[in-house]
Parts: sequence; C-alpha cells; structure tokens
Amino acid sequence: MTRPIANPPIVLLTDFGLQDAFVGILKGVILTINPKAAIVDLSHGVSPQDIGHGAFLLTSAMGYFPGGTIFCVVVDPGVGSERRPVLIRTKDYYFVGPDNGVLWPAAQKNQVEQALHLTRTAYFLKNISSTFHGRDIFAPIAAHLSQGTCMTKLGIPVSDLVPLEFPVPEKQGNTLILTVLNMDIYGNPTLNITWDEFKAFAGNAFCLESGTRKISRIYRSYAQAQEDLEPFLVAGSSGYMEIAVKNGSAADQLKIHCRDRLILTR
Amino acid sequence: MTRPIANPPIVLLTDFGLQDAFVGILKGVILTINPKAAIVDLSHGVSPQDIGHGAFLLTSAMGYFPGGTIFCVVVDPGVGSERRPVLIRTKDYYFVGPDNGVLWPAAQKNQVEQALHLTRTAYFLKNISSTFHGRDIFAPIAAHLSQGTCMTKLGIPVSDLVPLEFPVPEKQGNTLILTVLNMDIYGNPTLNITWDEFKAFAGNAFCLESGTRKISRIYRSYAQAQEDLEPFLVAGSSGYMEIAVKNGSAADQLKIHCRDRLILTR
Amino acid sequence: MTRPIANPPIVLLTDFGLQDAFVGILKGVILTINPKAAIVDLSHGVSPQDIGHGAFLLTSAMGYFPGGTIFCVVVDPGVGSERRPVLIRTKDYYFVGPDNGVLWPAAQKNQVEQALHLTRTAYFLKNISSTFHGRDIFAPIAAHLSQGTCMTKLGIPVSDLVPLEFPVPEKQGNTLILTVLNMDIYGNPTLNITWDEFKAFAGNAFCLESGTRKISRIYRSYAQAQEDLEPFLVAGSSGYMEIAVKNGSAADQLKIHCRDRLILTR
Repeated sequence: MTRPIANPPIVLLTDFGLQDAFVGILKGVILTINPKAAIVDLSHGVSPQDIGHGAFLLTSAMGYFPGGTIFCVVVDPGVGSERRPVLIRTKDYYFVGPDNGVLWPAAQKNQVEQALHLTRTAYFLKNISSTFHGRDIFAPIAAHLSQGTCMTKLGIPVSDLVPLEFPVPEKQGNTLILTVLNMDIYGNPTLNITWDEFKAFAGNAFCLESGTRKISRIYRSYAQAQEDLEPFLVAGSSGYMEIAVKNGSAADQLKIHCRDRLILTR
Repeated sequence: MTRPIANPPIVLLTDFGLQDAFVGILKGVILTINPKAAIVDLSHGVSPQDIGHGAFLLTSAMGYFPGGTIFCVVVDPGVGSERRPVLIRTKDYYFVGPDNGVLWPAAQKNQVEQALHLTRTAYFLKNISSTFHGRDIFAPIAAHLSQGTCMTKLGIPVSDLVPLEFPVPEKQGNTLILTVLNMDIYGNPTLNITWDEFKAFAGNAFCLESGTRKISRIYRSYAQAQEDLEPFLVAGSSGYMEIAVKNGSAADQLKIHCRDRLILTR
Repeated sequence: MTRPIANPPIVLLTDFGLQDAFVGILKGVILTINPKAAIVDLSHGVSPQDIGHGAFLLTSAMGYFPGGTIFCVVVDPGVGSERRPVLIRTKDYYFVGPDNGVLWPAAQKNQVEQALHLTRTAYFLKNISSTFHGRDIFAPIAAHLSQGTCMTKLGIPVSDLVPLEFPVPEKQGNTLILTVLNMDIYGNPTLNITWDEFKAFAGNAFCLESGTRKISRIYRSYAQAQEDLEPFLVAGSSGYMEIAVKNGSAADQLKIHCRDRLILTR
C-alpha cells in the first residue's frame, strides 16, 4: 500500500521544454492551490508528443522517488479530444495525466491499485481550455492530492486504461532482434535487454550488428573502454544495456536512432 | 489590495539560459538573505535581451500565480546605464526588475498601485557590478521583500515608468492587420487577437494571409485538425489565437517570425 | 569555521543536461533520504565531461551561497574507474563529488579544512552501478549530510586530492599571454585576468590580439559600448575581464574558443 506522507513531492514530466512559460504556469497553478507544495522537475525534455519517450523516462526514474510521490505527466498530443484525463494509484505512487499510454508502463511496473477517470470539474481550474489540460486539469488535481484530498472524490473508477508496452527482444534461433528504447543526451542508445538477460543469451562472445558496423566488446564502465571511437556495450544505469563510444556519441557514429532494431547474434 | 501571504514565492524570469551559473547565482543570493525563500523558475529562455518576449511571457503567466507572488525579472540590455531599477506593486503582485518596459504590460494588466525607484543600497549586495544587477540588486530586493521588509524602505516613488505596449490589431475596412506576439517552442505563432475578438470580426469565413499561403480553417484543439501539414487557427492557451500545423511547426512551414504582420480578411 | 545551519541547501552542478531523467533521479534519491531537503540547481549545462568548465562555474558561483551549503558536483568521466569519491569541508561549505579536480579550485579558494575518501557504503544506495555514481553515491551522501549526519562517519581522511589549477597569465616582457577560462551563453569569452590585474599591467593603452583582430577599447558596461560589432573588453560579473560585442557574440565574430590563448600588449 502507498505509504502516506505529509505533503508528498509533485514530480513534473512534460514535453514543454524550458523556453516558454508553460512549466512555470504549472507551478503557479499548483502553488495557488497548495502554497507549500514541493515541486520537482523530472524532465521537460520529452521529445514533443512522444508518448513512448515520456513513458521510458517515467519508468526509469520512478523507483528513485519516495513513496507517496505524485507524478504529474503532460505528454498529451490528444489534448482536447475524447482521450480521458486519469489518476492512477499504484503500490507506492500516484500518477496524473492523459490516458494515452504514457503512464501505463510505470504504473504496471509498480502495480496498479486503482484508476480513475477525472470527472469532478470542481477540482479543475474554472475555465478549461481545449489546448492545455496540464494547466487546467492535471496540475490542479496533483495539487489537491498533495494536500490530502481523498482520491475517490476526484473521478470515477475505470478498468480499461490505454496500454503501452515497450518492445521485447524477439528470438530467432541464435539471434535476438533488439530495439533501441531510448537515446540519451550523450548519444548512448539504450537497448531493450538487461545485463542479466544479455549474459544469459550471449555470454561474452557476441556480435551486435548496426547497419554495416559490428559491436563485439563489452565493458563494465565507460572509463574501462580503452580505445576511442570503438563502440562497445555497457550495462547502463537504467538497468538496460547501452551502446557507447568513449568520448563520443554512438548515435552519431553508428547512425542509430530511437526505435531502430538491431540484430544480436551469439 | 495585495493579499499578504507568508513567504510568498519568488518567481524568476530571465534571458540567462541554463548553461551558465547565472540562474544558480540568483538563487544563492536569495537563499543567503532568506534561507526559507520559495524560488520558482518561470523561464530562463527569454530570447537574449528581448524585452518584448519577456513581457509577453510574464503577462501570460502572471495570473496563474498566487496573490503576493514576487516576480523578479532580469531582461536587462541596459544594465550599467542610467536605466532605473524598479519595484512595482500591483493589485495582487510585486514586480522587481529594470525600468525598460519588461514589467509594464503585466503590471498594467494587474493595476499598478505603487512604483519605486530602487535607491536604498543597504538592501543591495555590497559590491554593485555594472554588468549583473540581477545578482546585485534585483535578487536581493526580491529576497528582502519575501521576508516582509516594507517596500517603502526600498526606494523612492516614481510615476514615469517606461511603457511598453503590445501591438493591437489595425482595422482597414474588411481587413485587420495582425501581429505575431510570440513564437512558442512548437513553432505556433501567437497572434494579437483573442478568440472573442476574432469571432466578432470574422465569424467562420475568413482568410489569413501569410506571404503566399492562405489559412481559412479554425479548430477548437490541435487534435481536432484532420489533415497533416494544413495550417489552421486555434484558440491558444494564452487566450490569443494561434496558428498551428498538426504534428508540425507552423513557423517553419509558413516561414513566420515573431513580430511579423499578417492580413486577416473577412 | 563552517556556520552550521539547519537543512542547508544542496546545490547540484552536473553535465547531465536537462533532456534526460538523470537530474530528476538525483532529486528523487535526495528526497527519499531527506524529504525536507532544499535542492537548488546551479547548472546542468557543464560541457560533457569537461572538468575545467565545471570547476569554473563552481568557483564563480560558490561565494553567493549561504554558509553550510552542500555542493554536489557530478562531472565524472572516470566513473567506474579507480578515481575516488570524496567529500571536502572548507571554511564555509561542503563539496561532494569525484576526486578528479572539479572540486579543487573552489575548495582551495574557500580553504580546505578536511577531505574524506567516501568509503562507508552504508550511506550509499544499496546497489552501486559502475556508470552513475551521482545517483548511487554523491546524491545520497549530500542528503545524509544535509540531515546532520556527522561527516567523519562517511569516510577516511585523505590529503592527496587531485589538483586542478586554472591557467595564470604568462608575462613575457611587455606582453601577457592570457587564456580563455570560460565561454558564456552570450558568446562572451572570460579571460584569466581580473580588472585590477589588467589595470596594473596595461592601464588604458593596450592591444589584445585574437588572430588577425585587435581589441583596444575597454568599457565599464555592455550598454556603454557605442558601436555595434566592435569588440571591447569589460569587467565581467565573475571578477574577470571579458571580451564582448554589443548586441552580438564575440566568440562567433572573433572565432574564439574556450582555452584559446591571446596576446595582450601594453
């Protein structure tokens, strides 16, 4: 069960960037409702309208926040359409955002206990736009929750949340088809396979093909890599394997993009 | 009258970007004076030295912050010249910054009640540079104010603030000349006309000309738009009409820039 | 001696950028240990793995933070190698980070009182990766310190910290060889000479050579400069001399880069 804590942090994850006033406005709305709210930025650098990118960042960061944390996620290309605003309570956390899959993998990973369609407009801002529900619905709901408002007051239960599954490795004989789940700012592609899964499948003798390039080295850390510009695999901090180049960008050098598929042979 | 609240938020709006230490230094200065200060970033992405951009972001965000909020605004191309540092109290807020117009539209919109030229150097940092008054004057003043220091101690009344007016639509028979007030990170140009003004002038049959391109569709939300790459108008979250392209950048596609003028015909 | 203050701010300085979840994860880790932690972002825009850039930002910002502040610095190209995680107590501050020089100039400037190799894993996260010690070691240590944990519990004293010295001007007769210490977001190169040192050496008649361009003007502020596009020197806010161009980027115009060397003749 979620540990109740006083004034839990409200963690913001959006694709708003930091140039405009959008993120600041979310914070103003929250502080107007709960002047003592503890607001934390997870990231506002989700690729515009990229639900999968938002879901990955949320899932990889979630477990480092204290129980009771309220994640307010605004990656919302369907704002103003029929997509539902939802609130999900899991074993340890709350998630507020659009029902478009962005909350799904994190919520599943932490075990969904209750999900609501947010219907109680008394807890929204007075005027609801059709273009900025982060401001008008999600931030106010997060603020009310952080003040101790009982979640059952906020909407009606639903059991048909929109799912989003990260791709899993596809086994074909002695090969696995892997997918790039994420690309970080350093140009390190994250693959959809953990260190343990990798070792179980491939051991130390493997070949990962990316176009015409082949990767066959594995290191424990970036610093351990000896040669510059030779790409290698490393166990990334998210638990997944990453491709890296010492002092360079693997993405640039290998021309790899998010969601690319690569062939791993053992 | 401004509702007095304990330890009101200090909201920072600057053109400093986030690469250097400038924003962090403002926060350090504030926390040295008021260790319990609640500091909020509105944006540090104002286009360098662009007073109009800063004024737009401030005006569009202001109303979402709680009464008593102290806005500390540093868009200050005239730093070190004779331009005055000022503090403005309005019906609900305080504004600290340079007297160059950046505070003007927001302050006017919220009704100016008192304006001071900041002259009391006892409330500044000890050493005043000629290049960084955000650090040396504006942040310290905001911090002292947030602790309850009476504003009349901080300077001398002035009644001749430097004005800055946003352009208004210019009517010429059946046409309106509109101006692009702002460009957001998605490439949606904001026009200087509200939904109500637009409807009153043009109804549903209109033509907005941008170079050789014509826009004649209007939607309630981004998601409602059916075709990709067909530009349309939408009521933006700031209250003004915006030009948008579904899943794209209207600015790039139409080659529109901030402050461009477009012709609306009914 | 460091003034003890309750719940001192934890100031984060990293090269993580703001696109990924890394900075948010640091904050989650800190708040899990100390739910009341006051976390401040100094900058996350240090050039990737650029220890000198991080050291410059830290040194120039440090003095504006209150006594007792805990600086948590993660510019850590050697993560996973033998480089030590350290905690340094100086006259006024605490510094947590890798022992690679990034903390050195700031710590020296504020007088080192004690330095520890962080060895007590009970104060780390349970699972220590070989790629993200910011999350696994530095953030937890900063959080424990901020709660009042006695620093001597956290590791063993060391006296052989890795040094990093900023370059000093090199005198050769009537010339000084200066070095560009930093490049800010406006394209203003910071030189390794203070206003006082500059005046003592050169007075008002000088020539600073950058490639084929010569600079011979000096102003007290950016606004004082009269002509556009004519580069000049100005006393920057960090205390060092800067090269500037009114309404432009000196770096672009003069093709100057960080660490370039320029010849000053009197």
